[in-house]
Amino acid sequence: MKEQGVSQRKTVDVTRPKVWLRNELLRVGLAEFLCTYVMMALGMGCVAQVVTGQGEFGNFLSINIGFGLAVAMGVHVGGNVSGAHMNGAVSFTMCVFGRLAWKRLPLYILAQLIASFLAAATIYGVYYEAISDYSGGNLTVTGPKATAGIFATYPAPYLSLMGGFIDQVFGTAMLLLCLMALSDQRNKPAAGGGEPLVVGLVVVLIGMSLGSNSGYAINPTRDIAPRVFTAIAGWGVDVFRSGNGWWWVPLVAPPIGGVLGAGVYKAFVELHHRPLSGQGEESIPLKKEENNCADRKAAEEVTLRSVINKI
Amino acid sequence: MKEQGVSQRKTVDVTRPKVWLRNELLRVGLAEFLCTYVMMALGMGCVAQVVTGQGEFGNFLSINIGFGLAVAMGVHVGGNVSGAHMNGAVSFTMCVFGRLAWKRLPLYILAQLIASFLAAATIYGVYYEAISDYSGGNLTVTGPKATAGIFATYPAPYLSLMGGFIDQVFGTAMLLLCLMALSDQRNKPAAGGGEPLVVGLVVVLIGMSLGSNSGYAINPTRDIAPRVFTAIAGWGVDVFRSGNGWWWVPLVAPPIGGVLGAGVYKAFVELHHRPLSGQGEESIPLKKEENNCADRKAAEEVTLRSVINKI
Amino acid sequence: MKEQGVSQRKTVDVTRPKVWLRNELLRVGLAEFLCTYVMMALGMGCVAQVVTGQGEFGNFLSINIGFGLAVAMGVHVGGNVSGAHMNGAVSFTMCVFGRLAWKRLPLYILAQLIASFLAAATIYGVYYEAISDYSGGNLTVTGPKATAGIFATYPAPYLSLMGGFIDQVFGTAMLLLCLMALSDQRNKPAAGGGEPLVVGLVVVLIGMSLGSNSGYAINPTRDIAPRVFTAIAGWGVDVFRSGNGWWWVPLVAPPIGGVLGAGVYKAFVELHHRPLSGQGEESIPLKKEENNCADRKAAEEVTLRSVINKI
Amino acid sequence: MKEQGVSQRKTVDVTRPKVWLRNELLRVGLAEFLCTYVMMALGMGCVAQVVTGQGEFGNFLSINIGFGLAVAMGVHVGGNVSGAHMNGAVSFTMCVFGRLAWKRLPLYILAQLIASFLAAATIYGVYYEAISDYSGGNLTVTGPKATAGIFATYPAPYLSLMGGFIDQVFGTAMLLLCLMALSDQRNKPAAGGGEPLVVGLVVVLIGMSLGSNSGYAINPTRDIAPRVFTAIAGWGVDVFRSGNGWWWVPLVAPPIGGVLGAGVYKAFVELHHRPLSGQGEESIPLKKEENNCADRKAAEEVTLRSVINKI
Repeated sequence: MKEQGVSQRKTVDVTRPKVWLRNELLRVGLAEFLCTYVMMALGMGCVAQVVTGQGEFGNFLSINIGFGLAVAMGVHVGGNVSGAHMNGAVSFTMCVFGRLAWKRLPLYILAQLIASFLAAATIYGVYYEAISDYSGGNLTVTGPKATAGIFATYPAPYLSLMGGFIDQVFGTAMLLLCLMALSDQRNKPAAGGGEPLVVGLVVVLIGMSLGSNSGYAINPTRDIAPRVFTAIAGWGVDVFRSGNGWWWVPLVAPPIGGVLGAGVYKAFVELHHRPLSGQGEESIPLKKEENNCADRKAAEEVTLRSVINKI
Repeated sequence: MKEQGVSQRKTVDVTRPKVWLRNELLRVGLAEFLCTYVMMALGMGCVAQVVTGQGEFGNFLSINIGFGLAVAMGVHVGGNVSGAHMNGAVSFTMCVFGRLAWKRLPLYILAQLIASFLAAATIYGVYYEAISDYSGGNLTVTGPKATAGIFATYPAPYLSLMGGFIDQVFGTAMLLLCLMALSDQRNKPAAGGGEPLVVGLVVVLIGMSLGSNSGYAINPTRDIAPRVFTAIAGWGVDVFRSGNGWWWVPLVAPPIGGVLGAGVYKAFVELHHRPLSGQGEESIPLKKEENNCADRKAAEEVTLRSVINKI
Repeated sequence: MKEQGVSQRKTVDVTRPKVWLRNELLRVGLAEFLCTYVMMALGMGCVAQVVTGQGEFGNFLSINIGFGLAVAMGVHVGGNVSGAHMNGAVSFTMCVFGRLAWKRLPLYILAQLIASFLAAATIYGVYYEAISDYSGGNLTVTGPKATAGIFATYPAPYLSLMGGFIDQVFGTAMLLLCLMALSDQRNKPAAGGGEPLVVGLVVVLIGMSLGSNSGYAINPTRDIAPRVFTAIAGWGVDVFRSGNGWWWVPLVAPPIGGVLGAGVYKAFVELHHRPLSGQGEESIPLKKEENNCADRKAAEEVTLRSVINKI
Repeated sequence: MKEQGVSQRKTVDVTRPKVWLRNELLRVGLAEFLCTYVMMALGMGCVAQVVTGQGEFGNFLSINIGFGLAVAMGVHVGGNVSGAHMNGAVSFTMCVFGRLAWKRLPLYILAQLIASFLAAATIYGVYYEAISDYSGGNLTVTGPKATAGIFATYPAPYLSLMGGFIDQVFGTAMLLLCLMALSDQRNKPAAGGGEPLVVGLVVVLIGMSLGSNSGYAINPTRDIAPRVFTAIAGWGVDVFRSGNGWWWVPLVAPPIGGVLGAGVYKAFVELHHRPLSGQGEESIPLKKEENNCADRKAAEEVTLRSVINKI
């Protein structure tokens, strides 16, 4: 049925004016940039506030909640245009499972990298005096007054690279498994405009549950761009040396974990949904339902976006 | 009216291809496994983070919120396939009140047990280095560096077995009472795709309100499977001896409490809803409403699932 | 238009079987009892956990969040049957503004009192060992190991009776003002099944904002019934003497505040809604909207309940 | 299409009775007053409770959450009448982008100023004894027992005026950027009655992320009116001198930031939505969708309000 639906809408799309297709790449890229920027700036702001506030302005729980809300706002900002991935591992997994055209991947990654870099620069600017006051102007990656953790993730002292790799694979797998469930219209998705908030709550939960080992990057673009910024802005090459050369783990592990988690959801749940195709529209009540109200809109949105993303 | 609706849909179901009925048990079992695994892994992860983080990465409140969000995500992952019980006491109570066929119960229990065991193993793996670092490699059930509480529940020092039994009966009664209310379409259910979140908030609330006596297992499968895992993984038989032989209480008390709580809701509210049957469909506006939009879908889902579950 | 709607539905109601009217009082009373019991037991449980846990199992914030969630669950449990007032000041205010028949008030108050008393007894039972362990078996109203505050509210040492009276009037006024707004279908109500949660959030907010002076009873039945229970159960007459005879303030001030707050909302917002009556149905798009989907259901519920409540 | 929709509805509006237009200014002004009063009183109450409670009744996180919930309740109280700006920078930005008639701006600002002033007076009254007890009756702007921060914002010691100006511009830009996204019906808005809560969560997030530098006023009317109140009520001219004459920054920076943030959203996302106008209604499925259920109502509300606001 889904395939039928797609072809049907494709025909409808042909009747639209072609004009909006011209700048489609720009349109999607700008939205992905802006939602990633909002998510990253507000998310890193939470960490900056906690680190420089020395316990007076929040704690790890407030970072978890804040970063999750930042993700929710990012989805509100770009959700219906670019899908608001804001995460290279999400975009990569969407490509693997056919929900994003591979040729779109570089655009998404680029938008995410630039946005994360600029968000890091912004938070550095907004918290410049706070960071200077807290660290005495000495920008360090480790030690009691370390501030590099505001921008990129660093592992706990006890964590080996292998342990951190497992941590990042598992965390991203959980993220993508939940995201797949949340967008599965034949299961129990978050309807009624609540998707952004529930996606944010997934990130809150992962931060509370899998955050202490290495700071839950679970996102290559979120981690590398601010790390590069700090290397340039005064923290130096220590940002790459620290944690036994930790920097590559959040780059490599999340895409693997993302595909793993989404694949597990497909294998355990999505593939086993009752077959609905090959039957007349009228004979299946469930199908009619799906065309109703909110569901109809949701399905249409998914369809339209997937058509657009594959162009 | 409900019974009419069921028989009506049964007829419709007969017109469907029978193919999906073949693997229905596998389908439901896999979904129940996956949602329980997600809930347990992310829930126990919160405890692991708090315990090994020594106060730096959360507290009891973050465990309450995290476990509740983990339940919410579990409902999103399996809610429309297996109902996402994730709790042997919930499945048992559903059987008692005719919402799940008794012959389905072993499947649910088995899926929940395997998922909880594997989730415990996963969290042990992901937090292996953190647990080793925290405990000095000495896996203990009691004492200042005890880590068994990451996986299974243990009572407070002051709690007698009788006191703990009452605690678990009452906690599970509150859980099932609320779940019955939340799924009662003639009362004030959580509509619009918000069910998973509200179910999660029930668990948050019980953790905040009834969590300090014995760690609010309120779930036999959630407690025994990780306990067996810890017995095997290095904590030894102390996991069964501790708390004056506490281990059987979360097994026996929750099913009793569940039936009690659900029964109280039925006796005090559900049985007293206005009679709607015995009348023509058209004459009662309330009935027509129930067939609208979200309600209609919700009702249909419930109906379909109950038909399936009774097969 | 509302009046038209009511009379229209009244006619429809007459066509219903009269049988359900017979036990209507019992039906409403049982629902009001059960929702109040759930709210009070889980709410006081949060306080018991924090007090006896000595900071390990929560703090004032967790009491605020927990009591609010308890209110939300109460609304889910009784919302569509009795309206889930769970608060004598709410019932009184509803009577003053014609949303509840005065002859119904004693039933509501009685159900709330019995439920609050039994909930206090339950929490005393569930936390009996914890309270004994914490207080050394010495049940006191004041002092470092005071436990009476688990059940009823007591003012801060600095608070005069006049200051406390103002505190309780203002807190209850804010509660009712917000509740009036949340149920005003021509303003911005919480639709889509989210009402219970939003009502709970109002209580969370009042606890965070107006909780430190005297423990935000803002509810006469919530306060007096557990106070009487503690007087009987071993805390003695100190529960009435303490705080310079504080006990009568949460009885007298909230009803005054409730009427004040609801009146202010009516005077500032509700009375000024655009007049919609006296026009044909078809000519006003807004009216047609209101008959749609969720709104229609909500309106119908309100209408039905108000008809019932006035019988 | 939007323009078509507007003109169409305008015609419909003409058929309404003109009577409600007479007191439209009063109606909008009263609603804006009441929602601002509720937001400010409950928001400042959170700060009062934390400050006077010396850590026993909340912390910075509870202020963040409480102020956000206060905003959410404000939107419920006035949302469908005045739009519930509650913030001079929001009203100003709405004027700049044509969503509010410029001649309405003084009414909004005035209502916000009076409401904020009276809310400050109320909280001073409700917490009078608490403030006296905490401060020993000595009302100070700085120092260990300072209480002026309950009412207006003051910068951190390290913050320069330039740094604070950037902080306020950026914070308000993030606020308006998110608000624009949340009300963009062609993107991913918060539907189903969840708008007030999501707007509140934006404020929670900004408090967690950008709150430590200067207390996130991001609102000129919220800051100046309580500051004037404290100057009169006993804190004296220090409220204007403190922080190197900080008082003008929350007046000047937020309107600039608001226009900047809303403009960025328009430039990066809203301007690039697919063109839908110039086509027949029937040929575009997306358009038909937008006329459905919740969306239809939301669109209509926006349209009606924008018509009203421009009168």
